[in-house]
Amino acid sequence: MTHQTPLKADAGHAAMANCIRFLAADAVQAAKSGHPGMPMGMADVATVLFTRFLKFDAADPQWPDRDRFVLSAGHGSMLVYALAYLTGMPGMDMEDLKNFRQLGSKTAGHPEYGHAPGVEVTTGPLGQGIATAVGMALGERMAAARFGADLMDHHTYVLAGDGCLMEGISQEAISLAGHLKLNKLIVLWDDNSISIDGPTDLSTSDDHLARFAASGWETTRVDGHDPEAVAAAIAAARDSDRPSLIACRTVIGYGAPNKQGTAATHGAPLGDDEIAATRAALGWSHGPFELPEEAVAAWRAAGARGAQDHADWTGRLEAADAGVREALTEALSGDLPAGWDAALKAHIATLIEEKPSIASRVASQKALEALVPAIPTLVGGSADLTGSNNTKVGGMDPVRAPDYAGRYIYFGVREHGMAAAMNGLALHGTAIPYGGTFLVFADYSRPAIRLAALMGVRVVHVMTHDSIGLGEDGPTHQPVEHLASLRAMPNVHVFRPADAVETAECWALALQTKGGPSVLALSRQGLPTLRTAVSDDMPSAKGAYVLAEAEGGDRRVTLLATGSEVAIAAQARDALQAEGIPTAVVSMPCWELFAAQDAAYRDRVLGPGTVRVGIEAACDMGWHRWLGEGGAFVGMTGFGASAPAPKLYAHFGITADAVVAAAKARL
Amino acid sequence: MTHQTPLKADAGHAAMANCIRFLAADAVQAAKSGHPGMPMGMADVATVLFTRFLKFDAADPQWPDRDRFVLSAGHGSMLVYALAYLTGMPGMDMEDLKNFRQLGSKTAGHPEYGHAPGVEVTTGPLGQGIATAVGMALGERMAAARFGADLMDHHTYVLAGDGCLMEGISQEAISLAGHLKLNKLIVLWDDNSISIDGPTDLSTSDDHLARFAASGWETTRVDGHDPEAVAAAIAAARDSDRPSLIACRTVIGYGAPNKQGTAATHGAPLGDDEIAATRAALGWSHGPFELPEEAVAAWRAAGARGAQDHADWTGRLEAADAGVREALTEALSGDLPAGWDAALKAHIATLIEEKPSIASRVASQKALEALVPAIPTLVGGSADLTGSNNTKVGGMDPVRAPDYAGRYIYFGVREHGMAAAMNGLALHGTAIPYGGTFLVFADYSRPAIRLAALMGVRVVHVMTHDSIGLGEDGPTHQPVEHLASLRAMPNVHVFRPADAVETAECWALALQTKGGPSVLALSRQGLPTLRTAVSDDMPSAKGAYVLAEAEGGDRRVTLLATGSEVAIAAQARDALQAEGIPTAVVSMPCWELFAAQDAAYRDRVLGPGTVRVGIEAACDMGWHRWLGEGGAFVGMTGFGASAPAPKLYAHFGITADAVVAAAKARL
Repeated sequence: MTHQTPLKADAGHAAMANCIRFLAADAVQAAKSGHPGMPMGMADVATVLFTRFLKFDAADPQWPDRDRFVLSAGHGSMLVYALAYLTGMPGMDMEDLKNFRQLGSKTAGHPEYGHAPGVEVTTGPLGQGIATAVGMALGERMAAARFGADLMDHHTYVLAGDGCLMEGISQEAISLAGHLKLNKLIVLWDDNSISIDGPTDLSTSDDHLARFAASGWETTRVDGHDPEAVAAAIAAARDSDRPSLIACRTVIGYGAPNKQGTAATHGAPLGDDEIAATRAALGWSHGPFELPEEAVAAWRAAGARGAQDHADWTGRLEAADAGVREALTEALSGDLPAGWDAALKAHIATLIEEKPSIASRVASQKALEALVPAIPTLVGGSADLTGSNNTKVGGMDPVRAPDYAGRYIYFGVREHGMAAAMNGLALHGTAIPYGGTFLVFADYSRPAIRLAALMGVRVVHVMTHDSIGLGEDGPTHQPVEHLASLRAMPNVHVFRPADAVETAECWALALQTKGGPSVLALSRQGLPTLRTAVSDDMPSAKGAYVLAEAEGGDRRVTLLATGSEVAIAAQARDALQAEGIPTAVVSMPCWELFAAQDAAYRDRVLGPGTVRVGIEAACDMGWHRWLGEGGAFVGMTGFGASAPAPKLYAHFGITADAVVAAAKARL
Repeated sequence: MTHQTPLKADAGHAAMANCIRFLAADAVQAAKSGHPGMPMGMADVATVLFTRFLKFDAADPQWPDRDRFVLSAGHGSMLVYALAYLTGMPGMDMEDLKNFRQLGSKTAGHPEYGHAPGVEVTTGPLGQGIATAVGMALGERMAAARFGADLMDHHTYVLAGDGCLMEGISQEAISLAGHLKLNKLIVLWDDNSISIDGPTDLSTSDDHLARFAASGWETTRVDGHDPEAVAAAIAAARDSDRPSLIACRTVIGYGAPNKQGTAATHGAPLGDDEIAATRAALGWSHGPFELPEEAVAAWRAAGARGAQDHADWTGRLEAADAGVREALTEALSGDLPAGWDAALKAHIATLIEEKPSIASRVASQKALEALVPAIPTLVGGSADLTGSNNTKVGGMDPVRAPDYAGRYIYFGVREHGMAAAMNGLALHGTAIPYGGTFLVFADYSRPAIRLAALMGVRVVHVMTHDSIGLGEDGPTHQPVEHLASLRAMPNVHVFRPADAVETAECWALALQTKGGPSVLALSRQGLPTLRTAVSDDMPSAKGAYVLAEAEGGDRRVTLLATGSEVAIAAQARDALQAEGIPTAVVSMPCWELFAAQDAAYRDRVLGPGTVRVGIEAACDMGWHRWLGEGGAFVGMTGFGASAPAPKLYAHFGITADAVVAAAKARL
């Protein structure tokens, strides 16, 4: 296959595609860094997609029923910025392109969700885009089932590179998409046989078409520089009853006569000489950031193509049944429905009354039983641990092709794919997703959790079996560093509730956290109800609070604990109080919320000047912040072991006796 | 397919397989927890493998040229414990089986490397076993190329479940194995159509045979309860020129008449009644933990099968060329060769003389140039970032099928698969592997890094682009929480060297860390040489040390920094000293080593009572430990941004001026 046919300048497809190529080459050159190769290689495919197929209205890039375009190969960010500019999306000007990769610009090195129009998801870490798109495509199907095909009926397109397809998460994503028959998901693979180290045959011999077919996908391969072939493939994919992979054979850096087809075009500016040679080779007589008027006009017309579709959709929305209209509007607002927490509050009151001893994973299920009926957008699932994570409650039918009306997703043993799909469901705008696995497997999901934090999307990770308290499964299954590693990540709320009351409160707080992900770390083992006093507010909302104040004098000891260890702190307090040592117990269900309180409140809780002991069945990373230099920590110093939970707590010295001894040694 | 043919008791294959079944059922019942379903389902396959094919000598389970058997479906740990007992491996007695999952026993809930004979790798987190086995199989091929086929010529067998194959890491593993044509790798898939949530068709429709074939594997499917069919498949796989997948159709919990074939047998005891029914169904008249003598004798004979092979191998080793024999012996010892650090020491002396300003990733390459020729077992690679990670040095030829004599592995865009393969290379015992990626992608590798830490195997992760100092690629590529999250993990050494001298020292320390993984966090940007004084020891070995002591009086300020920020601390010290404020700079290349020093040394370095300021272009998680309550931290408080690196340092206030201001505010 050769691609040496000269393209005709200033008119039609070739000129439009070359607009993308030169904007990418020029912006990367101006920034002195970036990735020109992919936008230049995929310019033809993107031009076909955006001018003939993609349903969008550039005047309103957020139109809810638009087709989604996900740039999984995020390093080629100039492609999406160029498209936003060319199609005329508000807020993307030529100045923005000239400021590519500069401080404060919209045009970041990799596409950042919320920074620039047309960016549906933050990408860059490879494989995340395709896996997030699965969630978007699933969100579309579920929303169509709920609101009707006249209000929700769009495609999700993904542009993925070789790197995306080599990442393991891509397998989880395509397997899930194939199983769920997400036929409106279309992946355009930039099949250029080049990765950073050189030709892809340095490291891979995969037949990706066969791999996708093995997961139930439609597959085809086309010359990615032949617009009609690309168009025919997309048209066929849109007619398929399954998700589609279109391998687009392209030349990376297409048009750069001396560098195209090599890794040299991937991640560095072409250089002034090569750009000049590219101009000559493609017959492009325009200067840097200059574009032919006819081509720009054609692009703007493409950007306006969807205005009528958009208007028709608005008409259908206005004409729709009021209940449906209001439900869709409410879902899209991201607000929780009026009265969403009434049942939860009643549940909390009952808990305080009945004081059950239950695992916090069970408490989570009980909270969900109050929340799921009240919040129609709440959808859940688990990575094949439904019964252990307690994530499925009555009334949640499974989501299964071709009926997407259910609210429970069997994600399979795919923690990473689940986390990315949750991001996609949230980004689609019609769902608040939660998903379950064991806390120790947060490691598998971590790159996707990070993107949720960076984007600021609301997803709730239900992570049970949160310490050595899970017992016999042993150290491979016992998190000791995971609380710390998740707390280290910016913009994540890590909740570790102490009992059923706190669990309910933390669920409420997680759902109210619209701007980022939450993790609920929950016990396998039973926990007593410690919060036995009725309170008008939710004490957990401050992140930490005095659960039991010192009695019989000024506080001398402060015991700080989270989750299952708060009960140990309470036992230790009883012992210390019995010895006449006024001791307070502080429960710290969410460090991030506590850190956001004012200093006066924090001091009131932490008790500087008292002997402080932290108790958590985890490593001490981060605890020194709350304990001060003289404080003690009772917890783990290494990996766990395989044994019944009570024996492990004794073995590792996480006991009330150890807490009492640590406190008294410092008095 | 039905499996109702009654098996003949007390003789031959059926009885031998039933020994496994009942040991598993009885041990799980005694422990009141565990996973009987897999061992019962795969007992026939395991019996065929261990009695007819597996090359091993039960008397010496560590014989270097043994076939490796990896239980990727680690929850079925009783299978491997039963096999170790039945074949007569020393140190696995019936008492150990009776103590399954109890504190201090060898028979942990999941197989723990180093605890029990026959456990080649710690498994449990799904997908890790198969991916680690790829490294073992690659290690075998590389060792065969180096030491000759008469000393290294064995297979690697993997028992994997549906969960292993659903994990994304399995795709990275099989893709790499297929590309490298690791034909002595044979995966036995426990194809039982059941996962924890129920039938696998709840969540997957993959055709795994087609998927493996797409990556260049030989594939076949057999009745996993038909010993002759299994044997024929294994024999064919051993003759293949590519890695092989054998799908073994089995019934989970085979033999339990009321529960077999259902998820109920997966992760819970069968119960006394069902075990009794199983005894009746299989015609098994023996009590719990009782086995027929004939069957045990047959098993012991199977365990002794390899003794002659072993003796022959020992003879070949003794007769081998002395150079080869010594090289293999040295490799297997894990010791570094005599004089391994001579060139490195000379390199350090040159650095101190020449004081280059180079990125620590470049310094790492220079260190490798001194180390690779000196340490023949050192093998490297990168997850498609060779030029960025600076991991390939002169004289390292690529490892490519069919010639495995090289020492550099193009791992492809497979960070997770790379990390697991590195574990396998190390476990094979003939290599010290290192592998490169960006620090931010430590998240992708994390589950495999954790297993390295848990097992205590020596692997070195070269993680470059370690902060906002990478610049324009933006927050998706800028680690801010990764140092903390890796430091939180037990038994990991996280090195963040400040200059080329420290980089060389940290490489030496990483290689000397035989008992666990090391991470080298390295800069993209250039760094001045700060260690300009010759020293007889390696100051980095203490983890932190006073790089520049306060002058002109008692120390009033202590600036603590790591990596690229030590230069900022040095600038701030100059400014403070110029104002007459005696200020020390402490470089902290490795917190874990520093924490292991005695309190007197730590105090000497940290300077309690002085004003302490920590400087690190990362989040503050963990820093309070070194700074005390009154200390200040200059670093990141959230995600980074896309811009040239110097602008980012200024934007986020990580500057000498900020350090000076923070110190003075506290004086």
